[in-house]
Amino acid sequence: MTLHADLTRALGVAEWQLPDSGFTPELHMLKETLLSLGNGYIGSRGSFDEATPADITHCEGTYLNGVYSSEPITYGESAYGFARNNHKMLQVANGKVLQLSVDDEAVTITGATEHQRQLDLKTGVLHRQWQWQSRQGKQLQLQSRRFISQANPHLLAIELSVTALNFSGDIQLDSLLDAGYPGFQKKDDPRVGVMSIADSLSLRQQHCDAKQATMLHQAHGSESRVAAAMSHQLPANAKWLANHCTEHCISQQFQLSLTKGEPLVLHKLVVYCHNNEQADDSQLQQHINMLLQQVCAQSFASQLTAHQQYWAGFWQQADVKIGGDSALQQGIRFNLFSLAQAAGRNGVSNIAAKGLSGPGYDGHYFWDTEIYVVPVLSLTQPDTARQLLTHRFSQLNAARQRARQMSHPRGALYPWRTIGGEECSAYFPAGTAQYHINAAIAYAIRSYYLATADSHFIREMGAEMLLETNRLWLDLGFFNPRQQQRFEIHQVTGPDEYTAIVNNNFYTNAMVQLQLEFSLLIFADYPELAAKFEVSNSELQSWQRAADNMYLPYDHELAIQAQDDSFLNKKPWDFATTPADKYPLLLHFHPLVIYRHQVLKQADTVLANVLLDNRISPAQKTRDLAYYEPLTTHDSSLSGCIHSIAFAEAGNTEQAHAFFGNSARMDLDNYHGNTGVGVHIACMAGSWLSLVMGFAGLRVRKDGLYFQPRLPQALPELEFRLCYQNRILQVSLSADQASYQLISGKPLTLYHANQAVSLDVGAPVKCSAGV
Amino acid sequence: MTLHADLTRALGVAEWQLPDSGFTPELHMLKETLLSLGNGYIGSRGSFDEATPADITHCEGTYLNGVYSSEPITYGESAYGFARNNHKMLQVANGKVLQLSVDDEAVTITGATEHQRQLDLKTGVLHRQWQWQSRQGKQLQLQSRRFISQANPHLLAIELSVTALNFSGDIQLDSLLDAGYPGFQKKDDPRVGVMSIADSLSLRQQHCDAKQATMLHQAHGSESRVAAAMSHQLPANAKWLANHCTEHCISQQFQLSLTKGEPLVLHKLVVYCHNNEQADDSQLQQHINMLLQQVCAQSFASQLTAHQQYWAGFWQQADVKIGGDSALQQGIRFNLFSLAQAAGRNGVSNIAAKGLSGPGYDGHYFWDTEIYVVPVLSLTQPDTARQLLTHRFSQLNAARQRARQMSHPRGALYPWRTIGGEECSAYFPAGTAQYHINAAIAYAIRSYYLATADSHFIREMGAEMLLETNRLWLDLGFFNPRQQQRFEIHQVTGPDEYTAIVNNNFYTNAMVQLQLEFSLLIFADYPELAAKFEVSNSELQSWQRAADNMYLPYDHELAIQAQDDSFLNKKPWDFATTPADKYPLLLHFHPLVIYRHQVLKQADTVLANVLLDNRISPAQKTRDLAYYEPLTTHDSSLSGCIHSIAFAEAGNTEQAHAFFGNSARMDLDNYHGNTGVGVHIACMAGSWLSLVMGFAGLRVRKDGLYFQPRLPQALPELEFRLCYQNRILQVSLSADQASYQLISGKPLTLYHANQAVSLDVGAPVKCSAGV
Repeated sequence: MTLHADLTRALGVAEWQLPDSGFTPELHMLKETLLSLGNGYIGSRGSFDEATPADITHCEGTYLNGVYSSEPITYGESAYGFARNNHKMLQVANGKVLQLSVDDEAVTITGATEHQRQLDLKTGVLHRQWQWQSRQGKQLQLQSRRFISQANPHLLAIELSVTALNFSGDIQLDSLLDAGYPGFQKKDDPRVGVMSIADSLSLRQQHCDAKQATMLHQAHGSESRVAAAMSHQLPANAKWLANHCTEHCISQQFQLSLTKGEPLVLHKLVVYCHNNEQADDSQLQQHINMLLQQVCAQSFASQLTAHQQYWAGFWQQADVKIGGDSALQQGIRFNLFSLAQAAGRNGVSNIAAKGLSGPGYDGHYFWDTEIYVVPVLSLTQPDTARQLLTHRFSQLNAARQRARQMSHPRGALYPWRTIGGEECSAYFPAGTAQYHINAAIAYAIRSYYLATADSHFIREMGAEMLLETNRLWLDLGFFNPRQQQRFEIHQVTGPDEYTAIVNNNFYTNAMVQLQLEFSLLIFADYPELAAKFEVSNSELQSWQRAADNMYLPYDHELAIQAQDDSFLNKKPWDFATTPADKYPLLLHFHPLVIYRHQVLKQADTVLANVLLDNRISPAQKTRDLAYYEPLTTHDSSLSGCIHSIAFAEAGNTEQAHAFFGNSARMDLDNYHGNTGVGVHIACMAGSWLSLVMGFAGLRVRKDGLYFQPRLPQALPELEFRLCYQNRILQVSLSADQASYQLISGKPLTLYHANQAVSLDVGAPVKCSAGV
Repeated sequence: MTLHADLTRALGVAEWQLPDSGFTPELHMLKETLLSLGNGYIGSRGSFDEATPADITHCEGTYLNGVYSSEPITYGESAYGFARNNHKMLQVANGKVLQLSVDDEAVTITGATEHQRQLDLKTGVLHRQWQWQSRQGKQLQLQSRRFISQANPHLLAIELSVTALNFSGDIQLDSLLDAGYPGFQKKDDPRVGVMSIADSLSLRQQHCDAKQATMLHQAHGSESRVAAAMSHQLPANAKWLANHCTEHCISQQFQLSLTKGEPLVLHKLVVYCHNNEQADDSQLQQHINMLLQQVCAQSFASQLTAHQQYWAGFWQQADVKIGGDSALQQGIRFNLFSLAQAAGRNGVSNIAAKGLSGPGYDGHYFWDTEIYVVPVLSLTQPDTARQLLTHRFSQLNAARQRARQMSHPRGALYPWRTIGGEECSAYFPAGTAQYHINAAIAYAIRSYYLATADSHFIREMGAEMLLETNRLWLDLGFFNPRQQQRFEIHQVTGPDEYTAIVNNNFYTNAMVQLQLEFSLLIFADYPELAAKFEVSNSELQSWQRAADNMYLPYDHELAIQAQDDSFLNKKPWDFATTPADKYPLLLHFHPLVIYRHQVLKQADTVLANVLLDNRISPAQKTRDLAYYEPLTTHDSSLSGCIHSIAFAEAGNTEQAHAFFGNSARMDLDNYHGNTGVGVHIACMAGSWLSLVMGFAGLRVRKDGLYFQPRLPQALPELEFRLCYQNRILQVSLSADQASYQLISGKPLTLYHANQAVSLDVGAPVKCSAGV
């Protein structure tokens, strides 16, 4: 285990909050990520209400999920079939800015004292309070509340309260809708403004009057147009002064009259929408006007209440309680909170690797969704899980096209990274070669179906995705005549990106086998599907034959499953002489150097063993873990949570706890040093999997839920709820007891340590914890 | 055999000339390549003396070998150690242009009749004669001769003769030094001018007066500065009118007075030089002035004579005579001519993949030099061979640096493609991963040394290159503890670029073994070297151990040498359903599709077998050839010549002849359709190897020259000369007889069909041809 142990604990520890006090410039960008807000459609970073001084490293960003700009990828040497365009999650106008000035002096963090912020995870509100003093000694007390509504997907709202502490008089407010901010502004960095929002948007229309302002933009390289608008709810004595419009920014200026000691409260309401398709500019303008009118017609308080109700419902269902460790408690809650902020819920968006919290990975969707997020949401927010899968279904045609580009006459190949459906990976050995994205999508369909029994989804979407991805596998792999017709898949990259373009990656082959067998089950359970999609018996038989003859490489000398045909024959990596500052390896060694050694970035065979459940014997899993984990750098944030589960399964709950801790606080403690450009969504979901699959030992099988609790000593209590096939189940674990309570839904038989436990709605059933 | 058989025979067939008649716009760019001139330093394409009309697809280009501009390589996803900059062979000012005008009407090809050109291979002169008629009916007879001097590396000279056929009067001449031409101008192509010379040069100085003009430029991204100058030798009645200078072009205007029927003859002299290092602009200016003065002080005739003397000497030594096939005779002469035009001879330049004949591959140097060209030059122009190796030696420090970037604490790694020494490959799987470039350099050192016994070179340069590349191999490979400590080399790409990043490429491993054993021999024969380079006994022993334990993969079932650890286990390529228009495969299939199939771009194991000589048994070679050739697309122009040798060695002289024909006329018949951007230098050298290694069966071994003649029926006679260790040997082969004649040098014993033949200077010794 070589986990990255240095931590930067920028925020305080509290079980339901992220408390921030004072101001440390070096931590500002990190906090912008951690204090970001989102509702699955809009995301906006936790920057200040006022302008951030230019000498402070920061990264402004407000994003719309599923909306993107596109630009051609440049290659020094290109080749046929290389990804042609890169999508970028669209940055849109920043509507957060409320810039106060006193005697023409801007109120900024530079003059702040007693600066405090709290992100309230329970309600999804970012609070701030501070004092400010002008050069002439005028003092203000400032307070604000900000939220991005979970009740209205289009709304970002801010309440600002200003109190003059030692004077009475007028001050000025500039409220901005700013589509010209630099995306990443770094002190001493000559590239200031290089990634400006202006690089991805062109102005189409601006409108403003004394009451409101709107902007319409075209996203570069795509059909998307976006609109943003703002209005204010101001006290009666506020006076509109002027609007200043430039190509990229509208500023509305107001005069505010302060009376010493009397708080002045105002609200800013910002709405966003987009339209990819038919609507013309005037329709989009009408739509944004309507959205703005709607929110202006309601009070800030009522809109906040609706938002808070969402979160109350969310936590009732999703909360996880951990005994004995406030930092981990905070970590798991922050992670669940972040998932809920990031996941698209409209069927035309997904969940980006960094959610909506920063520009990392350009906002692309990866397998993170399917292997890490969907299994969590299927058991906690199944409607959202379905929306993510619906989004993949909406891109099935694009995946078919990609398969044709890759010379497959049939089937669909999902892109390794994308927003709009097109392959955006500019480095195919760790991109397109990760064909296992197809198996990940099948795995997510399976996870969702096992958790929900949603036959409508299977009939309308799931089966077709399985069918088309199966066809890809059958054409990609082959029955090797030199190896007794076993089914082999060559020249793929598995999850471990420190090994690339190999033959018979164990993970890939095993996951394809799982996919084919699940597909056969589905097509047997829903016989109408074969007719609907014109699937012949011989095609079904070919799935069976491939599954039956799937080659799963095994090394008899070591008695372990081989990561691929060549991995175990490679030179061992020399960990002893690799200093700590050479990690992550990918930043210090050419890919060829990494590829030719036995060294892993992340769980690969170990991940397969976790996902394959009881298809692999516990003893085999333990041997594999013992071999591979010492070779694993965990340079990927997707690795720790899986190892936590694997160690728990192997009975080593102490190691499992260490890995869980790393995953649970990956971002809060900035373990990988890059949270400043966004949180690690898959890792966040994975930390829930560590608890539920690891410590509670849950496996969802066709015949029900299987628990095998094994709490580490350092984690004496664990409580969580699950949605399972229209039921709500509460699970409470302690060192000596497991308690299962059916909150709602039909009676259920589950398995505790392989013993059947029957539940009716009502009192919990308690079982001895011993496994 | 799937050789590309469509041919475009743009020029006529003649044994010592490339005749061109008429004007076909679609063939113009191809002819620009074929009629290009060069002297190893300057190269200039065979464009017209006057401006080419803009609607004709053409590609102007004048180049300096070893001089380059450099620009950053852009990656969609970059990684540690990726090549950072791309070098481009420098395009310099075009000094060829002599634009005549009659009554303000430009004399261009559009008004031409009876247009004839001949590139004379014997003398290196491009001749042209044509007639032109103005819209008003005035007729000119035009003749020109152009050469790039082999006697003065800085000189390009043109003689123009103009005769007014039906009028007397004044015409105008604009003589240009043009550094603003577009590099590639294609009809209907919106990218006109994109690759303009102006993108790689910045003007520093211009000077001109009535007699001469000079330009100094800075090459972008490098330290190189270049100078070009022109002057004229004009008849007495020519009158200077004016100079027109723009940033990128100087035009000198003259009035010429024609008398009907009387030829007016003028000469244009253009000189080029560069300075990479200390000299400042004024020194460079002085140098170009001095060069211009020198050439202006001599007559055109005397300079042409010096040039022709070089070629006479060249052909006396290098000519190859083939009986019975004028087209092939022309092909082999054109190929040898092109090599002599392209090869750098100053120790600070090499031979580009396209020579100096076009912009293809940006003028980069590849292994083409060492595997294809140096073995030819070592036996025909050993001084030039030494200069090419000297150039590699001059870049040894850059190769050491590259090895460090690639995490090797010792040794040197030569770049896959470069001009200035830096790795320029933007696609590492078919670039940096081709570590075999190191072994190619060692092979070239060995070839040169066996042919010349040049111990001075070995002591001063060769041994150090061997030592440093050996060190790289010892660090790259490892003694595999799981495989009885055999020496393995992983994650490399062999010559066949349709298979990438494999373990234990047979070619690579075998060539490293050859290199190590040759190095051991050298360090044994020159014991002072170990002390000079502080090479310990244990280091020498490690070479021996690696050579002794080198793993050479072998498939016992097929009884063939395996291309690598995984190749033979891959899915066969479906040639039957691949239509002809899908070749070359690389333009129609994603690399992953190609990589996962048994399909080759070019000779790989077959190449090893040819180079390894009698280390591999003839029966083994024959089996390997029978397996691999049918899987080979020959999409690389480097493939045919090697297969010609292999088939000759296997006794199939008919196939060998077909492959030789393809290589011999690769460019003249434009078999790969891309000669328009430059000739295929390695293939050209390879065609000589086909004759000499294939049909004459020559192998140069430590104990002498071994011949095994086997002429195909279609090639009943073959005659060539060799330089061998300060001797000149003439070899004349016919169907029934081989004749060996020592022209100069010490007595020699060679081997004919393994029988010793002793030669003294004088009469030839005849042997029966039967093998």
